[in-house]
Amino acid sequence: MAPAGLNMESISPLTLNRLSVYLRALRQLDEEGAKRISSREMANRFHLSAAQIRKDLAQFGELGIRGVGYEVAPLRHKLEDQLGLWREHRAVIVGAGNIGSALAQFPGLNSEHFRVVGLFDIDPGRIGAQVGRMKVRPSGDLAQIVRDHKVELGILAVPAEAAQENYDAMAEAGIRAVLNFAPVYLREKPEARVKNVDLMIFVEELAHHLG
Amino acid sequence: MAPAGLNMESISPLTLNRLSVYLRALRQLDEEGAKRISSREMANRFHLSAAQIRKDLAQFGELGIRGVGYEVAPLRHKLEDQLGLWREHRAVIVGAGNIGSALAQFPGLNSEHFRVVGLFDIDPGRIGAQVGRMKVRPSGDLAQIVRDHKVELGILAVPAEAAQENYDAMAEAGIRAVLNFAPVYLREKPEARVKNVDLMIFVEELAHHLG
Repeated sequence: MAPAGLNMESISPLTLNRLSVYLRALRQLDEEGAKRISSREMANRFHLSAAQIRKDLAQFGELGIRGVGYEVAPLRHKLEDQLGLWREHRAVIVGAGNIGSALAQFPGLNSEHFRVVGLFDIDPGRIGAQVGRMKVRPSGDLAQIVRDHKVELGILAVPAEAAQENYDAMAEAGIRAVLNFAPVYLREKPEARVKNVDLMIFVEELAHHLG
Repeated sequence: MAPAGLNMESISPLTLNRLSVYLRALRQLDEEGAKRISSREMANRFHLSAAQIRKDLAQFGELGIRGVGYEVAPLRHKLEDQLGLWREHRAVIVGAGNIGSALAQFPGLNSEHFRVVGLFDIDPGRIGAQVGRMKVRPSGDLAQIVRDHKVELGILAVPAEAAQENYDAMAEAGIRAVLNFAPVYLREKPEARVKNVDLMIFVEELAHHLG
């Protein structure tokens, strides 16, 4: 059962994303041994807005003390709970090319909160290859691994033309959330939420400023 | 010189990112031969909000005809111009690991709008390796390549502990915008804008919905 807390379903993706950014900052501070930090110090150090931090964290009010700041470790743990990170989520990656292989070894996906339990491909030249601590498996094994390991999260790192069928297979296998790196819009099923990651959006945002 | 148009400096990153999403959709429609599309059709097909589309594109007003929709190709070109894609931007990638190698071969970065002209690493085991159409070069060659090719965009795909020094070297070499994939906050210089890409933010957004 999820820990008692706020009703986070009503929180927008943007606010969620900012909470993730604060969490990243708090972890870094916690590991450095910092006990307290003010919204202004946090804003300066991590290039954030102090007013926005105060607004977003007001809901965690008891952890902020006026004139003193936030208690780093308790706020970190509170944010982890509220982001659903109070238990381990298991993930699989379909597509063992460069992006899939990079993600399979990504520290954040091999942490106490997330664990990659399978890396799949259909290319016989890739199947059996060692990627970090994992061997690439044939895509046909997906459903069994998802069942055996209670996998909830799928990462799609296949070419655009293979994305829909692999998404469908993930949904069919019982995966409930899919991070899609393929540059294509998927026909989404209600049981498997999709989050598209289009790296060109970041590149274009920078390009705009170059004029 | 930039084409005459709106003052885009005042447009928020969020709106810019939505314009990028519309552009992606319009390109797909254009390639399929579609001449016109209504905001509602576009919203349905690409899982967007019709009201938001109309609001964001209202500034390109003459291209939307009430009851008929937007003219696909002219709107595509208008968006490309306004996003700064009216000329080629040259990029370099520092870090030839999995993410750097994936990006070096990314179609969007080898297009009419963006071109990767160098992939760099300090690891002698990687220098000289062929990645797609490029050979990995030693990081010491960065400044010369940036100068010779008038590179404006840098992509940082190095480990966290190497990110700041490589960012500094990019800024020093004259690079004006940096996309940072290293999970670390950089001390930003005014001459080289940073956009952080933290893939865990997307993962955590999905995890939140899993509860």
